[in-house]
Amino acid sequence: MLVTKMNDLYGRDLITTQDWSVEEIEKALDLAFEMKANRYDHPMNSSLDRRTFFMFFYNPSVRTRQSFEAAATELGGHAQFLEPKSMRLKTSKSAGETIEDAAQVMSRYAVGVGIRILETALEYYGQGDEILRQYAANSSVPILSMAHDKFHPFQGLADVMGYRQHAGKNLKGKKIVQVWGKGALVRSWCSIQESIMINSRLGMDVTLAYPPGYDLDPEVIKSCEANAEASDSTFEIVHDLEEGYKDADIVYSRNWMTSNFYDDMGKHGVDAAKKMEIEKAAKHDDWIANSEWMSKTNDAFFTHCGPVDRNAEVTDEVCDGPKSIVYDVAEARLHVQKAVMALTMGKK
Amino acid sequence: MLVTKMNDLYGRDLITTQDWSVEEIEKALDLAFEMKANRYDHPMNSSLDRRTFFMFFYNPSVRTRQSFEAAATELGGHAQFLEPKSMRLKTSKSAGETIEDAAQVMSRYAVGVGIRILETALEYYGQGDEILRQYAANSSVPILSMAHDKFHPFQGLADVMGYRQHAGKNLKGKKIVQVWGKGALVRSWCSIQESIMINSRLGMDVTLAYPPGYDLDPEVIKSCEANAEASDSTFEIVHDLEEGYKDADIVYSRNWMTSNFYDDMGKHGVDAAKKMEIEKAAKHDDWIANSEWMSKTNDAFFTHCGPVDRNAEVTDEVCDGPKSIVYDVAEARLHVQKAVMALTMGKK
Amino acid sequence: MLVTKMNDLYGRDLITTQDWSVEEIEKALDLAFEMKANRYDHPMNSSLDRRTFFMFFYNPSVRTRQSFEAAATELGGHAQFLEPKSMRLKTSKSAGETIEDAAQVMSRYAVGVGIRILETALEYYGQGDEILRQYAANSSVPILSMAHDKFHPFQGLADVMGYRQHAGKNLKGKKIVQVWGKGALVRSWCSIQESIMINSRLGMDVTLAYPPGYDLDPEVIKSCEANAEASDSTFEIVHDLEEGYKDADIVYSRNWMTSNFYDDMGKHGVDAAKKMEIEKAAKHDDWIANSEWMSKTNDAFFTHCGPVDRNAEVTDEVCDGPKSIVYDVAEARLHVQKAVMALTMGKK
Repeated sequence: MLVTKMNDLYGRDLITTQDWSVEEIEKALDLAFEMKANRYDHPMNSSLDRRTFFMFFYNPSVRTRQSFEAAATELGGHAQFLEPKSMRLKTSKSAGETIEDAAQVMSRYAVGVGIRILETALEYYGQGDEILRQYAANSSVPILSMAHDKFHPFQGLADVMGYRQHAGKNLKGKKIVQVWGKGALVRSWCSIQESIMINSRLGMDVTLAYPPGYDLDPEVIKSCEANAEASDSTFEIVHDLEEGYKDADIVYSRNWMTSNFYDDMGKHGVDAAKKMEIEKAAKHDDWIANSEWMSKTNDAFFTHCGPVDRNAEVTDEVCDGPKSIVYDVAEARLHVQKAVMALTMGKK
Repeated sequence: MLVTKMNDLYGRDLITTQDWSVEEIEKALDLAFEMKANRYDHPMNSSLDRRTFFMFFYNPSVRTRQSFEAAATELGGHAQFLEPKSMRLKTSKSAGETIEDAAQVMSRYAVGVGIRILETALEYYGQGDEILRQYAANSSVPILSMAHDKFHPFQGLADVMGYRQHAGKNLKGKKIVQVWGKGALVRSWCSIQESIMINSRLGMDVTLAYPPGYDLDPEVIKSCEANAEASDSTFEIVHDLEEGYKDADIVYSRNWMTSNFYDDMGKHGVDAAKKMEIEKAAKHDDWIANSEWMSKTNDAFFTHCGPVDRNAEVTDEVCDGPKSIVYDVAEARLHVQKAVMALTMGKK
Repeated sequence: MLVTKMNDLYGRDLITTQDWSVEEIEKALDLAFEMKANRYDHPMNSSLDRRTFFMFFYNPSVRTRQSFEAAATELGGHAQFLEPKSMRLKTSKSAGETIEDAAQVMSRYAVGVGIRILETALEYYGQGDEILRQYAANSSVPILSMAHDKFHPFQGLADVMGYRQHAGKNLKGKKIVQVWGKGALVRSWCSIQESIMINSRLGMDVTLAYPPGYDLDPEVIKSCEANAEASDSTFEIVHDLEEGYKDADIVYSRNWMTSNFYDDMGKHGVDAAKKMEIEKAAKHDDWIANSEWMSKTNDAFFTHCGPVDRNAEVTDEVCDGPKSIVYDVAEARLHVQKAVMALTMGKK
């Protein structure tokens, strides 16, 4: 989708929240809270009446598929579940339809298209973002990221909705520690990158904590620094758990892969590359959100973008404890997705 | 779903009809007949308006998927089709999400969850029932069995609806013979077990007939005996076809596996275990519902829970004959599912 | 579906447009144009309210699945996506449900059934058409072809809708050249055969152009000749590109396989048979719709039934040029499908 009007979200893509103004983000979040309060009765509940939303999953998903399909249903429309084997797209190795043609034709059938594309479907970091922007350039309906190698805008929005539900609307000056966790699921960078960007954008004091070797995309870090400066907040990176957890108001724990994953995948194949990541991650025994670390905080809320790798990223005790907001954050995915779909592609 | 109120089906699980009172079963059946009579016009036809029902198929299905998805559509909602590969659940061999977390999150997105889990996805008899009850304990929305190793409640309800459509509402004193049939499909115990339980519960005189070696779950047999006593009817087991068919008002024919299947699967793998069952079943040439056997009955109706393995469980002549009610029973699946969904999870 | 009334499309199958009268075809096309003009507001937009349409894909598809599922949604219903692995049908090699039983039961759950079955799921040419007619004979709801070995009625209708949108409603006397194109996708005969039949039926002057060795079904050719005679138009076959393109008003370019494909598949397997076809097709370098050939025409529109194999069947220059109508023809699939579904299975 190319043409946009400022302050009017109709027709807009959402590839990362960083592409939207703070005002636009707040508009989506406000509507999400309204829709949560009137789940089946909101005046915009017919926004997708009889309309089709395509969900194209280059990579499989649990929560994302469930919540997007439910979101379309709750708005009166229908989300079609599409997988690559059913798309017959042209690749470097086989004849097929070009992305340009697929995007043009999908625009004729649907009011919007969601796309998920992650590491194992890609050759290099950033390729997923390029593909999404290629769909967006050729589509006349909004393209939404349902998670790609760089960003995961709806997870970032849901995280914020969850914090606000528990910590209040004004997050300015709240310290959030976003801390790497060990684990065997070899997670993408998309959720953590989106989250540190939107959090610094909205004025939270963000501390990113991880063991040496787990650096994220330097461009994203630069954006976070700029965001913090613009919102008069702080952004810092630490490699020390004590420092990370200290006085935090919110603890966000999540595993992510090293930057070597793409290279390893190219050289040794997907399974071997995953095994290498799992072995590396297993060395960092301390990097789990447990009661001891939580005791260093300002009685912090615990959050996680799910699905949780229990007793790796977080102990059962913390995850099931009174300050855990993980299920509310999971639910928030539904509400932010309904809000953005209603605003960007809903009937007028 | 944990909290229930007597005589109020809202919020209730359905894992077997044996968990519901006779009064509750009758309420569901009455509504099913009403919904059949007014297929697209019943006042409760908007019960699932814009709401999501998850169908989670550990094992694939034909009729169950078609009829549940159609039921949700006819009630104004949408049934999402989920398979294990798209769930990334934790197993003994791989990291992933726990059933507890999956159930909690699904409860946030949907008004109910249907689960199908059969022998080839399990390690021992009874494990499927345990898993369903684990989902139910952790879910805040109703859990419905779409067939599991022990029970198949919607098939049992549909069977009864079919009998009543043809033999009248009062089934007290009618003799039904539920007879094992040869065949190459290695059927689960779930349909036959559910059926003998609900039939004895509702006062039919049930004769269960099978060749030696095809004993069912002794706990289920005990329930049937208790049901018969409570409803003032009879329940008996015979291994003789003549005795089974004699004077029957309804003939129900169906293949099922021996109790050795799980062991054989563990020792030799699924395919070998199936082959062993097929070879065993092939020896019982007489165990087919044919015209000769039907001539011993009281001009009985013929029923089968489908899909039919023709010329193994039943001859074409009987299955296509004037007393066959197989298609009506298949249709009844839709109506009983609509009724139970409307009662347990419909909007108020 | 067996019983039909003339001039009343309710309950009718659509296996090829050749089975319908010209009057009936025109009725469907008129409604398609109306529905395009009032996409979400047409009075027949609730034709499938809460009703189920089954889409059964023996072979996968892109456009067909997307457009049929969207069509059902836009009519207020829901299209269920079914694949063979989820159907457990009886085959020559395995036990399972017969087509007769499957068709009878599906008729109880749905208001119509679409079926797609192409070469790689078949043993000989014509078997797909036989299977569709077997479903139709045993179903009490309409059976629609979503492309099979012989015909593709909705593509034929969409093609015509596209021409009329650009060349005007009256196509009598317009020359259309339907020209074979090189390419690596080994296309079925279904689209080209349906198209030459409906075009000759509606009075266009059809020139079918292809290199020696690419003959189509002789029965279809005979139908085209009869159609041309009945509609007072011309039908001719040429093997010369110059002659084909000369003075054409519309250019339709499309690859198709040779008649040897089934034999080769039987002898050498699917992949080898495809490779053989691709090698044969690659020899015909001139058979591409490019600017040079287009310059021989009467400033013709360019059309293709999609997905396009760019720079094989057509150059980017032509496909993206001002006379290309390929995206409008793709969109037309949606409208003609909505129209036929509303007419044949919509609520009254």
